[in-house]
This record gives sequence, C-alpha cells and structure tokens, in this order.
Amino acid sequence: MKKLIKNGTIVTSTNEYSADIYIEDGIIKEIGKDLDIKADEIIDAEGKLIFPGGVDEHVHYGSFGARLFETTDAAAVGGTTTIVDFAPQDKDVSLIDSIKRQAAKAENIACVDYAFHGIIMDPKDSVFEEIPQLSEIGVASLKLFMAYKGTNFYSDDESILKAMMIAKKHGITMMVHAENADIISVLQKKYLEEGCTDPIYHYYSRPPIAEEEATKRAIALAKSVDCPLYVVHVSVAEAMEAIREAYEEGWPIYGETCTHYLTLNTDYLAKPNFEGAKYVCAPPLRPQRHLDALWDAVQKGWIQAVGSDHCAVEGGFEAKKRGIGDFTKIPNGCPGVQDRLALLWTNGVCKGKITRQKFIELFSTKPAKIVGLYPQKGEIAVGSDADIIIFDPYFEGMISNKESLHGIDYSPFEGFKIKGKPEQVFLRGERIAKNGKFVGERGKGRWQKCKPYAFCYDYYRGE
Amino acid sequence: MKKLIKNGTIVTSTNEYSADIYIEDGIIKEIGKDLDIKADEIIDAEGKLIFPGGVDEHVHYGSFGARLFETTDAAAVGGTTTIVDFAPQDKDVSLIDSIKRQAAKAENIACVDYAFHGIIMDPKDSVFEEIPQLSEIGVASLKLFMAYKGTNFYSDDESILKAMMIAKKHGITMMVHAENADIISVLQKKYLEEGCTDPIYHYYSRPPIAEEEATKRAIALAKSVDCPLYVVHVSVAEAMEAIREAYEEGWPIYGETCTHYLTLNTDYLAKPNFEGAKYVCAPPLRPQRHLDALWDAVQKGWIQAVGSDHCAVEGGFEAKKRGIGDFTKIPNGCPGVQDRLALLWTNGVCKGKITRQKFIELFSTKPAKIVGLYPQKGEIAVGSDADIIIFDPYFEGMISNKESLHGIDYSPFEGFKIKGKPEQVFLRGERIAKNGKFVGERGKGRWQKCKPYAFCYDYYRGE
Amino acid sequence: MKKLIKNGTIVTSTNEYSADIYIEDGIIKEIGKDLDIKADEIIDAEGKLIFPGGVDEHVHYGSFGARLFETTDAAAVGGTTTIVDFAPQDKDVSLIDSIKRQAAKAENIACVDYAFHGIIMDPKDSVFEEIPQLSEIGVASLKLFMAYKGTNFYSDDESILKAMMIAKKHGITMMVHAENADIISVLQKKYLEEGCTDPIYHYYSRPPIAEEEATKRAIALAKSVDCPLYVVHVSVAEAMEAIREAYEEGWPIYGETCTHYLTLNTDYLAKPNFEGAKYVCAPPLRPQRHLDALWDAVQKGWIQAVGSDHCAVEGGFEAKKRGIGDFTKIPNGCPGVQDRLALLWTNGVCKGKITRQKFIELFSTKPAKIVGLYPQKGEIAVGSDADIIIFDPYFEGMISNKESLHGIDYSPFEGFKIKGKPEQVFLRGERIAKNGKFVGERGKGRWQKCKPYAFCYDYYRGE
Amino acid sequence: MKKLIKNGTIVTSTNEYSADIYIEDGIIKEIGKDLDIKADEIIDAEGKLIFPGGVDEHVHYGSFGARLFETTDAAAVGGTTTIVDFAPQDKDVSLIDSIKRQAAKAENIACVDYAFHGIIMDPKDSVFEEIPQLSEIGVASLKLFMAYKGTNFYSDDESILKAMMIAKKHGITMMVHAENADIISVLQKKYLEEGCTDPIYHYYSRPPIAEEEATKRAIALAKSVDCPLYVVHVSVAEAMEAIREAYEEGWPIYGETCTHYLTLNTDYLAKPNFEGAKYVCAPPLRPQRHLDALWDAVQKGWIQAVGSDHCAVEGGFEAKKRGIGDFTKIPNGCPGVQDRLALLWTNGVCKGKITRQKFIELFSTKPAKIVGLYPQKGEIAVGSDADIIIFDPYFEGMISNKESLHGIDYSPFEGFKIKGKPEQVFLRGERIAKNGKFVGERGKGRWQKCKPYAFCYDYYRGE
Repeated sequence: MKKLIKNGTIVTSTNEYSADIYIEDGIIKEIGKDLDIKADEIIDAEGKLIFPGGVDEHVHYGSFGARLFETTDAAAVGGTTTIVDFAPQDKDVSLIDSIKRQAAKAENIACVDYAFHGIIMDPKDSVFEEIPQLSEIGVASLKLFMAYKGTNFYSDDESILKAMMIAKKHGITMMVHAENADIISVLQKKYLEEGCTDPIYHYYSRPPIAEEEATKRAIALAKSVDCPLYVVHVSVAEAMEAIREAYEEGWPIYGETCTHYLTLNTDYLAKPNFEGAKYVCAPPLRPQRHLDALWDAVQKGWIQAVGSDHCAVEGGFEAKKRGIGDFTKIPNGCPGVQDRLALLWTNGVCKGKITRQKFIELFSTKPAKIVGLYPQKGEIAVGSDADIIIFDPYFEGMISNKESLHGIDYSPFEGFKIKGKPEQVFLRGERIAKNGKFVGERGKGRWQKCKPYAFCYDYYRGE
Repeated sequence: MKKLIKNGTIVTSTNEYSADIYIEDGIIKEIGKDLDIKADEIIDAEGKLIFPGGVDEHVHYGSFGARLFETTDAAAVGGTTTIVDFAPQDKDVSLIDSIKRQAAKAENIACVDYAFHGIIMDPKDSVFEEIPQLSEIGVASLKLFMAYKGTNFYSDDESILKAMMIAKKHGITMMVHAENADIISVLQKKYLEEGCTDPIYHYYSRPPIAEEEATKRAIALAKSVDCPLYVVHVSVAEAMEAIREAYEEGWPIYGETCTHYLTLNTDYLAKPNFEGAKYVCAPPLRPQRHLDALWDAVQKGWIQAVGSDHCAVEGGFEAKKRGIGDFTKIPNGCPGVQDRLALLWTNGVCKGKITRQKFIELFSTKPAKIVGLYPQKGEIAVGSDADIIIFDPYFEGMISNKESLHGIDYSPFEGFKIKGKPEQVFLRGERIAKNGKFVGERGKGRWQKCKPYAFCYDYYRGE
Repeated sequence: MKKLIKNGTIVTSTNEYSADIYIEDGIIKEIGKDLDIKADEIIDAEGKLIFPGGVDEHVHYGSFGARLFETTDAAAVGGTTTIVDFAPQDKDVSLIDSIKRQAAKAENIACVDYAFHGIIMDPKDSVFEEIPQLSEIGVASLKLFMAYKGTNFYSDDESILKAMMIAKKHGITMMVHAENADIISVLQKKYLEEGCTDPIYHYYSRPPIAEEEATKRAIALAKSVDCPLYVVHVSVAEAMEAIREAYEEGWPIYGETCTHYLTLNTDYLAKPNFEGAKYVCAPPLRPQRHLDALWDAVQKGWIQAVGSDHCAVEGGFEAKKRGIGDFTKIPNGCPGVQDRLALLWTNGVCKGKITRQKFIELFSTKPAKIVGLYPQKGEIAVGSDADIIIFDPYFEGMISNKESLHGIDYSPFEGFKIKGKPEQVFLRGERIAKNGKFVGERGKGRWQKCKPYAFCYDYYRGE
Repeated sequence: MKKLIKNGTIVTSTNEYSADIYIEDGIIKEIGKDLDIKADEIIDAEGKLIFPGGVDEHVHYGSFGARLFETTDAAAVGGTTTIVDFAPQDKDVSLIDSIKRQAAKAENIACVDYAFHGIIMDPKDSVFEEIPQLSEIGVASLKLFMAYKGTNFYSDDESILKAMMIAKKHGITMMVHAENADIISVLQKKYLEEGCTDPIYHYYSRPPIAEEEATKRAIALAKSVDCPLYVVHVSVAEAMEAIREAYEEGWPIYGETCTHYLTLNTDYLAKPNFEGAKYVCAPPLRPQRHLDALWDAVQKGWIQAVGSDHCAVEGGFEAKKRGIGDFTKIPNGCPGVQDRLALLWTNGVCKGKITRQKFIELFSTKPAKIVGLYPQKGEIAVGSDADIIIFDPYFEGMISNKESLHGIDYSPFEGFKIKGKPEQVFLRGERIAKNGKFVGERGKGRWQKCKPYAFCYDYYRGE
C-alpha cells in the first residue's frame, strides 16, 4: 500500500516546512518538494498542518476499574496513535506475567499501537529480580506508588531503593506516583471525623505539600543510589520546581504532567450536587496558580511531556456515586485520551502559552523518547512509522460527551471550546480516523517494544 | 549569701561593658558601676570576661548507654550551668512517668541545674494523649526519631503528624532526629554484604542525603499541620539550608547543631586501628564542607544553638569495640559537655568565625530561650539566676582526657589546642568550679521547669 | 543630678525584666531590684515599659530644602534622642568643612543629640583624599548618590569605586542612594512627553527595577573592591533580596529601610487633587507587596534598621505645588522623625509583625551600632547614656499634624491610629519630653562623635 | 546541478536516521530511503554523519583590526557555511551605510554565505532613528557596548534604553557586550600603577564581577522597557545564571557563549614570555569553574548558541606585542572560526558533555534561529539550503596553525587533539571544502538577509 500526502505543512518539534510525504509499507519513505511518485492513494493536504501521531505515555485501560481496550478508538480519533498503558502486577502473579496478561487483553482489540509500563504492586525480593528481564519483553519503565499505604499499591522507601538499584543496571526508567501516604491518611481521617465528606475534600486531604514532599523524597532516593527518575503526573508547582532543581544540579531527574492538570482547577472539584466527583483523580486537581506554573514548565522544558492519565472508570458518574457521604470511596480516574491534542492546541498554542514546535514535542516527540520508542514513533522523518495527523487549524468546535468514544457517561471537558481538529489520522500508513469517526479496522494496533536506556538515561552518570 | 563580682567586663549577646555584679540569694540583684555594697564575698574579675553560665540543650545522661548524672561535674568545669537532658520513654511506661523516672536519677546527684525533653519511643495513641500534660511537669519539648526503623525509637510520618497536631495546641516544641531510616537500612546491608565493616562506613551508610531528605520531610510534615519545628543536631549543609529556606518563607522552623559537627570531620571517623569508632555518633561526622557551612550558619543565625549531644558511652572505647567487624554494632555517642565552651570560643571567636556576642547567644542565651528557661537562665541581667562564668581569655592549653570529668577512657577532642578558660563558675551564686576542678557540692543541681510556648512559638501563626 | 526610675519593665533587644534604673551625670550607673539609693528625683514607672531612646540614623535637617534643627523637638517628643543627619558637601567646599558647617547649624539649637554622615557631591580626587580624616571629626559614614545624573548629587561607578577603595582602609561605612539615573531620566521624559504629569508618575518613572538595578550594581562595586556597604532607604523587595543574598554569600553588605516604606503604599501617591504630592520622596512609595516583604525583612534581620528619612520640606504642601503640571518639579521629602516609634510599635509590634525585642533593635540598638555610637547610645545598660523612654503601652490615639512639631503644614500620617506613647523622654538623664510636649531646654543636644569600623566592619575580611 | 548524497546518517537537533539527500539548485529537494534519482553527482556517505552546515553568529572580519573576508575559507574548511559578521558604525557614517560598506567588503570575496549584525558606535538620536530601517536591508540584530568608556564603542544606559525602545517595535534583536566599563577602568589604572603589566592582568582588570554586573544591568534595562535581549559572549557563570534566572521568570532574555570560553581557561593567559597575549580577548578567558558551568549551560539550554567571536588580528602575535609593558595595549581578539566544529565535537560530544543533537543545535540550528535565517540555514530538511557537512567521526588529529587558514601566525588551539573532521562541505549544493582544503570558488558567498522578529521574539509579550 503506497500513499502520497501532498501540499501540507509539516510541523515538527523544531521546524515547519512545506513538503510531500510518500509512505510505503507503513513507513515514511520519502519527504520532498513536489514528489512525483505513483501511489495507491494521493491525499491532498493543502492548507493543512501535518503532525506526527500522538504518543500518550500515560493511560489506564482495564486496570484500576477502567474500561478496556475496546475504547481505544477514542485515542485514534483524538490523534493519538500510540498509547503506553500501565500494567499493574496482579495478585500472586509475577511482574512479567502480569504484563503479558495485560498485553493479551489488548491483542486483536486495540485500535492504536500500544506499549506498557510495569507496575510493582507486591514489592518483594522475587519481584525485584524480574526487573532485568523487563527489556526482553519490550518494557523499559517501571512505576511504584508512594501513596496508598495499607494497600498493595504502596511501596515504602526501602522497596523503591531496591527497585532503583536494579533498574539502573538495566536501563529501566523508574517512575513514581509521588504523594505522601501518611499525610493523606491523617487528613482523610481528620476530615471525615469533622463531617467533611464532599468531593472537594479529596483535594484538602491530598494537599500540595503531600505531593511536594513525596516528590522531594523520591528525588532524594534516586540521588542516594544514583538512579534516573521520571515523576509521573506532576500537578504541583513546588514538585515541578524540585524536579527542575535536581535537573539543574546535574541529576537525570525529569517529570510529566497531564492534560487535566493544565486545564482543570479545584473549582471543578468543588462543583455542587456531587458533580465534583467526576473530577476525582489522584493527584487531585489543584488551585489555578499550579496550572499557570505548569504551563510555564511545559514551554520551558522543565516538564518533559503531557500524558492524559486516561482512566475511564467503568460505570462513569454512577460508579463515582459510591463515594456519596465519603469522598475517600469515590473511584479515582478521568477519561482524557481523546481530548489531549485538542486541549494542548487550543489552550496552549492558540493562547500563546506554547509554540507549535513545543506542542509537537510535548504531544508526540518527547513521550516517544521517554518510553524508548523514538524515532520509530513521535517524528515525521524518513524511516519513521507513518503515524500521521492531517490537522485542520481553522476548525472551531466544542467538546461533548456525545462525540466522545471513551465509553462512559460524562466528559470532564464537556463544553470546552476547541480550535483545530485532526481531520485524518493514519496509523502506520493506514487511515484510522476521519473527522472524529474511527474508520480503521479494530484490533490492528500492535504491541510496540520499548528500548531500555531511553531518554532519562541519556545523561546517566552511573557507576 | 551575698556576693559581689567586681571589675569584670560583662559580655552579653548584644553588648560588652564594664560593671560590677551584686548577687543575693542566687539571683543577680544589681549591676552597676563601682558598686559599694557589703557582701559576704568580693570577687575581683579585673581583666576577666563575665559570661552567663552555659545552657546545653542537648545531653544524654543515663539513656542510650551513657554514663549517669554523677559525671555532670564535667558540665560545671566546662562552664555549663544548665543541662537539658533527653528522657526517653521506657518500655511500657507512660511518657510522663518516664520523665519523672529520669528526673529521679538526677535528683541529689546532679552537679548543675537540669531540665528535660520528652522522647516518644512507643508512638501509640495513649502516649499522644499525654502531650497536653507535659508542661505541668515542666517539660516543653518533645523529640521523635525518624531513624532506626525496626526499633522502638522509630516514629513513622503518621505518628509525627499526630504528635504535632496535639503539641502545637499546647505550646510544646517538637524536635526530630532527622535521618531517613530506609536509606540507612539499605546502605548498611549493602556495605556489610560487600565486606565494608570499618567505622567510616558508619558515615557512608548514613550519607548526607539521608539527613537532607528526612529534614525536608519533617519540614513538610510540620507545614502540613502548621506546627513549629526544631530540628536537633543538624550536621549537613543541605539540611541547614532547608531549615533556612522554610524559615525565610515564614514558617516557625529552626535548627540546632552540635560542637562536634563544627569541629570534627570524617577524617576522624576514618582513623586507623578502629580509632574511628571513638567518633561514631548519629548523625555521623561529615566532610569538611559541611563544617564550613555550619560555622557560617551559626554566625548568620540560620542555626539557633550549639548543643554538645553529650553521650559518654559507658565503657568508653572498650564498649565501642563491640563493633569490630560490623560498624553497625558500634554504640553511638561521644562526650562533649565539658568542651563546648572551649571549642566554640577557640575555633569560633578566636578564628573570627563568630563574634563574642554570637558566642554568648549560641552557648547560653538562645538555648535558654529555645527550651523555655529564659531569662532565668542564659542572661546576665537583674533578676536572672546568678549563673556566671569568670573567663580568662589569655589562657592557652590543650584538651586532654586526663582532665576530662566525663568518666570514660577517651576524649574525642584529645590534643585540641584551646584558648581561654572558665576560671570560676557560679551556679545560682555558688562557686562550683575553679580552674577545671569541681569545687561545688554534688547534688545541688535543681530541676528547672521549662515554660511552654517558648522561642519556636514566638511567631506561631497557629489556629 | 541623680535620678531613679523605679518599677518599670525594661525592654531591650534581647530581654524584658523588671528593675530600677539609677542615673548619675547623664549615665546609667546602676540597674537593680528595689534600688534604695538617694536621688534628686524618683520617677515611678509602674506599669510602664522602659525603652532606650531612639536613634534615627537617617534625617535631613537644613539640607535639600528641609527645615532646620529648630524642629528637632519633633524627634524628642517622638522618643528619638539621637539623630544622624546627612551633611551634604556644599559647592566648592571641602567635605570636612561642609560637615563642620552643618554641625554649626545644629549647635546650641538642636533639642536632641546629633551626629553626621558625610555626602560627597563633588566627586573629584581632592574630595576622596579627605575620607581618611572623617573619623577625626567623628564621622564614620559616607553617602554617594547613584541617581540624579546631570546634577552634582550624581556619582558614577568610577567615583563610587574610588571612594570605596579609600573608605575601607579607614573603616568608613559606605552608603548609597541606589536608583538607576538613566532609567529614571528616560522614563521621566517619556511620561512628560505623553502628558502624564500627576504625582503618581513620580512612581512610574522611578520603577522598582531602577532601584533593584542600582542596588545590585552597588553590591557588585562593593564586591569588586571588597568594601562593606550599607544601602540606605531600601524600598523594593528585590533590592532587599539582593542585599540578603550578598550577605548570605558572606559579604558585609547590609541595608536600611524607612518608616514610610513600611506603612505607606502607592495608593497615597495616587491621591487626587494633587494630594499625592505630599508623599513624593525618593525612592518613591511602592505597591503593597513591597511593604509586606519589608516587614518580613525587618523581623528576620535582612534589613538592619528603620530610619525616618525625615525631610520636612520648607513650605510644606505649598512648596510641593511647584510640581503641578510636572511631577519632576515636586520637591522630594516627607517628615517622619516624630512618628517613627509610633508607627513601628503600632503597625509592627501590635500587629504581630515584629516582636518587642526586634522593635528595640530596629528603633534604637542596631542604628546605634551601624553609625558607631553603640553602646553609648541605643542600649539600657550600665555605662550607657541615660537616653530613656517611659512608654505607656495602653494609650490609644491618632496622628494629627496639629500635634506634629516638624514645622510644616501637613503630616503624611494624618489620621493614622496609634497605640502606646512615649510618656516621658530623657536625654542623658534630663527630661526633654512629656506626653507629646517638648519640656527640655533647646540647644542642649550635643554632637556625638561616631567611631569608625562600626557594625558593617564587624566581618570585614579586608585586604 | 543535481546532487545525491547517499547512505549517510543524518544528524539533526532532534533525530538521527539513515537516508539519502537529493539536492537541486542548491536546495534540499528530497530526503528518502534508497532514492533512485538521476543526478549529476552521486556522493557516497556510507559510514559518515551528515550535519547541516555551521552557522557562526559571531565573527569579526575587517573590523577591530581583524583580517578581511579573504580568509573566510577558514570557515568553509571548518564546516561553517554561514557567518554573521559585526558591522561597526564608521565615524560620521550612518548605521545603514556602515553596514552596506561592510557588506561591500565581503562581496565577491567571501567564501561562505554571510549576514550582518549592526553595531552602534555613535549613539545619538539620528542613529536610533535608523533602527526601523535595519530589516529593510536584511539586518535583524543590533549590538551595543557597555564597556570601553571614553571610546566611541561605549553606550551609556540611556543610549541602550533608547535603542531598545525602538528596536522592540521593529523586531530587532538587541545584543550587548556586557562588561562594566568603570570597574575595568579603575582596575586597569590600579594594576598599571602597581607595575602589573603582564597579559594575565587583562583578566584581573576585567574580573568576573564586571561581566556579572553589566549582564544584570542589561537585563534590568531590558526589563524596564520590556525588550528582548541577547547577551553575546557570556564567559562568566554568574552572568549565565542571571540570564537563566530572567528567562525562568518569563522574560525573553537569552545568551551566547563562544568556543574559547568553553575550552581555554586563564592558565593560557598566564603563559610566560608574553605568550599569554595570544589569548587576549574581551571578555577575557576565565578560571576553570566558569568553563565547567558553561558546558553545563549549553547542554541544558541556558545558553543558546556557541559562536567563535573570530577575530584574527592583523599581524598576529607581532601585533600583540604592542602591549609588552602595558597589557591594556594588547589588541583584543583571537581566531576561531575554523575550529568551532572540531572543538565542540571533540570536547563536547566525545567527552559526554553534550549530546550529538545538542551539538547540532548549538553549532547550526539555534544560531540560525537567533539571527533570523532559519530554516533556510541551520537545518537538514526539504526546502532548506543544501549547506551540508559530510563528517567522518573516526578521524583523529591535532589543530596546527600550519593548517589554519585564518591568515595569522598562531592558533590559540595549537596542539589541541581533535576527533572527527568535516570531510566534505557543501554550500548551497556546491562542494567548497574537502579534507581541510578549500576547493570552492572564492567570492561565491552571498549576503543572506535576516528576518526580524527572530527567535528572541518568539515569546515577546510586547506592548
């Protein structure tokens, strides 16, 4: 299958230029001026922008009560052609087997390409011993939770240190969910005792200082064993600053934020009639000053990428109502994979907060580098996968759950105005979306194997 | 008993001036020029400096394997007239009762006045409930350990938070021993496994980052429940900086360092023939750059006071030898109460690192304020206790264990040159030391009751 | 003349205690409990606080269009017993002679003690050569202006450097008025061209960045020739932070702020009907965030003292009207010497922004140290001058120009509520003020000779 | 003329991939896998790296006593295909005419493409009025000197402010040479008076604080009129940090460093037998810690580009000898345009200080963006000029003046070992250099017109 995309303006993380793109066997084979090549299909992109397909390095499908890979068409129509899912360790199952199980759920189902991060949920020595094998199955990153003491999510500092000591020897990128479990536990108890049960107390009981503290501790742990670190879903200005400071001191320490931490503040969590519950995720939404700081951080390169932390909780708002009368019982998680491009473009590029080049970097190029899939993914260049968005920058519309494919009954971004849209989306040369409809073949997404020693190891000073 | 000290130069934390001091009933009754008052004894201090008696806010007598109050004559000859001892909770004994037990050990024994800090070693709810009663027995400060996981010293973040929430309501000053237990535990194991057993590994397994991390965490905990905090024995530049930064941001967060962290570096710990064991204490001695930073910090007011952390381990060097072949088995602790004045004066004032005024502040005035004993202790002013040092600034000598009264077989400061000496020391008007000999009556030291809402609460923004 | 002040509570920069004060020959001779000494007068201070007399290190009498020393009774009733006046160099007159001329204006006129800072206004080599002689006439500080290019106030960087190189060799404290002359000049022109002539443009044309820049430059100059520096009338948060940072790095660099920079913001300058002109001084008043930062700075010790920059422009508001239609023509200067104590106490101590001890330090003790008059001035201690305030903390009132003695037709603090008042004020043992009335003998103020190598040289690392 | 470069590995500022490059009419027309296109010449680059031609944004040809454009073959053989020369205003000549004069000197002479920055040397109002016309002649940047008071180089703050106010309205990038003229002047005089005449006093009289101060002042000036700023030849860590800090605060403030500030320290300036004079340039070489900080800064993006500040002083070392006995008489300037690539690659990439991608960014891509020539210059992409280096990474050699084409009698980098070499260099598709020999046609370099509103204006918040 040969395709030729003509007359578009290619936008990359450094450049913008007019050229045609010739695709063969799902790969970009040529880029040139006025290419005169015979193709099976010629697509005219006159007046359009050409982006590399999005890489969403932070999604949850099937785990944590989220809907499964059937709903990955939401990614496709939103311009994301590769998702990196978290594969949590199942009870009494090995780390490797848990990842394979999770991969099996995606196989023949997923609408876009997919890859995995591991999650240790049973931090015992036999699990740490599996870390060296991760790269053999194409997994190059591993997440541990500093929050949720008393559950099997929780890893204490000793477990994190042990995992880091092994991970760094094998080029595995360590990720942490950084919130201080004890502060949260003490405050949740305090608020519930005081009769404060509304969704907004989800925020008050997980205050910025809890994330700031844990982020700084994770950094200290990483420093103490000299291991690169990637802090996921940074939502707090001071946590971002701690990462920046460590990086500036010379440590290979980086962070990610998510779409909703750039676009939704605590006002949403405070909505009346339990509406706030729709916005319950962890870390929680933050007051506006944190959003402002994070926009600054993504433009200036202090935060590397913007994931969606997509987690469409099965049952949607109804499921959230389990937490009426006790905010700690609200299932955490919000959908977002479909809207990541629209929100970054509209609220970032169109409002002058980020440049077009930075948009490409945050949305596609850098996450591909972080997870070890670059330049196969995340770039428009000869030899890269032909994951391509034809983007109409003149479109104006609105986000509505009616048009959302994430499979639940609400969208946290309902009514948000958007500019521009991914008119056509190609996955390895195949058209999979057109004007918000999934037009590809389901199940054609493939497991992409991540390479170890990815971006966070570029400056590993190691042993 | 009436005494008149004539012709000396009074040195305070702000001033220096020539005047006579008249003492009645152990209290300074008058200060004046050429006082012509009838007294039982007239002491000529011509050419001498007059200091307020030292307040050592950090000593261990009887706990942690240290020698008991019989050896408090060491304090007296060194110019320290008030010690504040740590009273650790005994197993299955209440906090209050543990303090009373410790006080009983000092009664009729101690050679200088004494007061107590509480230590929680069994952090359960019934203990936290005792905090409000502390001030009734004259205790206004409470210490918790972040280090030593797996022992009953250890308090997790939740315990610290609970203690803080109650302490701040009653004006109790919270103190922490700040070292990350898990980093230490992982590194101790690692070094022992690698066959690294020498005393210097005491330092490598308790690296600066472990103290920095815990200090920052303690600060975060304090912020999250808005409680004043006093970090004891700060030994690391970055920990000091974290305290300074929190203070600069407006939080009532302060710190203390100790004599040995200003005068002994890791070279001592690295001495051959197991000599390094003599210098094993926790936190450990640090590389020189930390000492330099701490001198800067004490002069500039970023660290409030200098304690001795006196802990003369029963058995001395012989006892330390229990750790031959395994540095983790070396009993922690060094003596220092006798040498605090000499070291601060010689290495601080005489080397131009601190002013005379700052010396008085660090040695006497500020610690008295911190623990809630000011202005009864720590000042030469009308109405204050007549705890007075007549200091000869022209003396030159050397520290030698032969002249040390701490009761063990070595001095960590053996051979250190010193300038100046406390020629005479008075406790509440009674002469207790003369030229290095204890000349007072043993057992005349009295339990001094500390007032709550002391220095760290001066700016408590509280509830 | 012998006086005994009984039963008051003495407040110093470190302590508070009840004691009697016995005064002989203008000097504090004894402080004691229940002093039983025969005196010519016994003053009962039961229920009152006893402060050391204020030292206002920054006043203008006679220079810059200000009213003369006749109006120093304003200082007396406000609790200030020592003023340090700026003696600007007269045209074609030597530095030393200019100071003597200024001193002659005060002699037999001044109601309080006085001392002088030099001001170089004709920065040529012969003037620099006079610097070594300054201390011979009791002057230990020297001010240069970085602002006012095109006038004889202005000193360029080269002049400042030359002065510094000589000053540091003789222990003279260098002071600068730090505002960037060129920024001001360009902006004044711009605003006048745009027809912006109101008093508020005094602020817009002297923006915070102009002071921040000049302060940083002065610091750089001081560093480049290793000379201590004292920046007067700091009004901008970033300037204060630059001073703090230099100090923290180890440089002997300090700053002063003034009463109005703590209590009046730009809203006053923006008052309609040309009322704003009453508040025109340089540097100008600042937006509120600077005031907040400066309160923080005075409490935390990042700024050493609070002067009044008293400058009661002859003619008062009428004179200010010369600037109607052109804000650059408004004579600069505001009165304030009378209200310094009231404003610091009411807005500082009573609002919890500074402690009582810090109040004494800022108002009296530290300025005395800065200018080289301590402990003769600025302290209640045996041997110090008996400059004493008996302060009633329970009084409540209001500032009104009717009761102001500064000799012009308005008070910038009109209508400000105040708490507490200096009930009686003593200068060297003589009562000079009582309840807001001057009751002393005019002309009894004496020229106080300042000692070189004062406070800013305490840590001079020199050559 | 059609060319096809096959089998090389293209290295860009974000990516590395294998592809062929097809060139037509001096432009990159196609990039593709296994391109099968008829061409006049096919170049095999198997095993080689393909870089975009270098852009040296900081050279002096003909001005300041430097050799003229005849020697631009040095650029060509060193892999630099575009130079941006400084066109200083001639005496009594307008800014625009001065630039045209300078351009005329290059015409039909230059071996590589060239563009110009303006330099104001006669800062009067008529000159400022020419700024709006700069972009009409293809000049988009303008430099002013803060150093050299007393010469016509010098601009005072007022001139800089005036230039900035106009420049920002027309998208002209303001550049400053930031050194405090007065500090230098005072110190030069001091050292000469003390008999210190050796070249090393060039450094002592231009200390880091002089550059730090002026950089901070330039930043303050830029802030005060809200104008983007580009500080050239940053050589001091603290200056770099000031730029970083301003940028982090949100200001469009950036900086450049030069090859020699990364590779030569003050030891060179201190060479005996007047050899140090070879290394006299301004700002001067710095102690090693600055070099380390600058390497860090270029990798982390705190400094945008690395120019050569090429200035081959006519007469070479002989000319430098005019300064024997008076270091201020040594003509400033060092050659470097030929060695920029070799030094950045060898000391940066090969020593792990910068990545290959960062090398491309610093050497070519970012300087093209800064001066307004991107993406025509500085990129390997379809549509860009075919300025291409075929680089052999396996070569090992040594810098020697024998092989230097800069036209003087010494190289400051004599004997430096280098790895890799530009085997072939193409300018707009024409081969101009091969293995260190210039093989092109002289005079074929063209004046490239820079576009205003270049990189530094990407985030201009403007009026």
